[in-house]
Amino acid sequence: MQNGTNKKYGVVIVAGGSGKRFGTDMPKQFLLLNGKPVLMHTIERFAETKLPMKIVVVLPEAHHETWTKLCTEHAFELPHELVTGGDERFFSVKNGLEKLDECKIIGIHDGVRPLISAELIEKCYATAERNGSCVPAIAVPDSLRRGSFSKNEIVDRTNLYRLQTPQVFRKDWIIGAYRQSFDKEFTDDASVAEKAGFPIILTSGEEENIKITHQKDLSLAATFFSMKSTFK
Amino acid sequence: MQNGTNKKYGVVIVAGGSGKRFGTDMPKQFLLLNGKPVLMHTIERFAETKLPMKIVVVLPEAHHETWTKLCTEHAFELPHELVTGGDERFFSVKNGLEKLDECKIIGIHDGVRPLISAELIEKCYATAERNGSCVPAIAVPDSLRRGSFSKNEIVDRTNLYRLQTPQVFRKDWIIGAYRQSFDKEFTDDASVAEKAGFPIILTSGEEENIKITHQKDLSLAATFFSMKSTFK
Repeated sequence: MQNGTNKKYGVVIVAGGSGKRFGTDMPKQFLLLNGKPVLMHTIERFAETKLPMKIVVVLPEAHHETWTKLCTEHAFELPHELVTGGDERFFSVKNGLEKLDECKIIGIHDGVRPLISAELIEKCYATAERNGSCVPAIAVPDSLRRGSFSKNEIVDRTNLYRLQTPQVFRKDWIIGAYRQSFDKEFTDDASVAEKAGFPIILTSGEEENIKITHQKDLSLAATFFSMKSTFK
Repeated sequence: MQNGTNKKYGVVIVAGGSGKRFGTDMPKQFLLLNGKPVLMHTIERFAETKLPMKIVVVLPEAHHETWTKLCTEHAFELPHELVTGGDERFFSVKNGLEKLDECKIIGIHDGVRPLISAELIEKCYATAERNGSCVPAIAVPDSLRRGSFSKNEIVDRTNLYRLQTPQVFRKDWIIGAYRQSFDKEFTDDASVAEKAGFPIILTSGEEENIKITHQKDLSLAATFFSMKSTFK
């Protein structure tokens, strides 16, 4: 499935999960949400925006065949390019970025965040186009402590934000940032860009834009999904 | 409804929410979960443990009449003492603690966390009895940043925990801690106890032990509830 060429906007959808953490043999990006694999919903969210978007999906080599079969089964025909993942998320993203050299603005999105709205995607890309970067963020409502179970101290939650995806950047920023050597302290793309010296601009995220990590998240996603009349 | 006397264990269930944040006129502790107000489920969780437990429920004065009516409507007869809340959570807890002078170990629990298991409650009380305090905690899976939307920096999430309730303490520790003057930096009972010089011991919390703050949380709670065959 081809994307066509010379699109201004691009996204790397990273779906590297092996299913181990989920307690199932099926990687979580392939589990069904409203009868369709989670990853297909995620791709639809980006295809649905007003932006001409080139979509690259990164999957471990071992999952390519399963994905191709799933696409046939579900008659899923949205254009996307399939790329092989690396051992670490960093290398998966890097592999994906290589396919988006034609784009001016590039986002990186978790394959298991299928509930983002087109409006939030468009807002992130518009902000990144204006300011160089944009990451959706939401406040942390809980009290936090840091340390061990037996010795720990309070962490101030003032002005503290949890990040979501897509994390969107000007192409030269993100491609440049990913030329750095891998550092195990990279927890997301913002941390890679920050280490390369680029400022990170935040925007208000969405409570519904959850990452499906645990079984409970799939149930929650189904609940959210049923509330979104615009999703298919 | 009386609790009887001389119980070794006590809990202050704080239900001060006014419903404003929830976007409904009904305070969230009174919303229905499986046909019954959330707060009744929460009280049941504590009544269900193996521990002889004196239960104090703190509600704003304005909600006492509603609660009494709901108890009649739902034929809710679990013993608990109703106490009037203060302007800040700190004062609500303090009002509740005054009724538990007979207890040796006292927990403070959010009225809108109805999905905690009896096992976790018992573990928290046993740990607090042994070590003076115990608070359930879960790891933070998200990338975090602190600052403004336009200028911010990464926050290390290593050894970082989100706290839940019940936050359980030896009676003399928590009563002593609540003799301090109110400080707006008190975000929970652990922060009050910590400022008084007491160590906070953490234990593994439960993903299901969510706080019902937003409409989506009520949907998630309903999903979790349906998975818990032991809940009524």
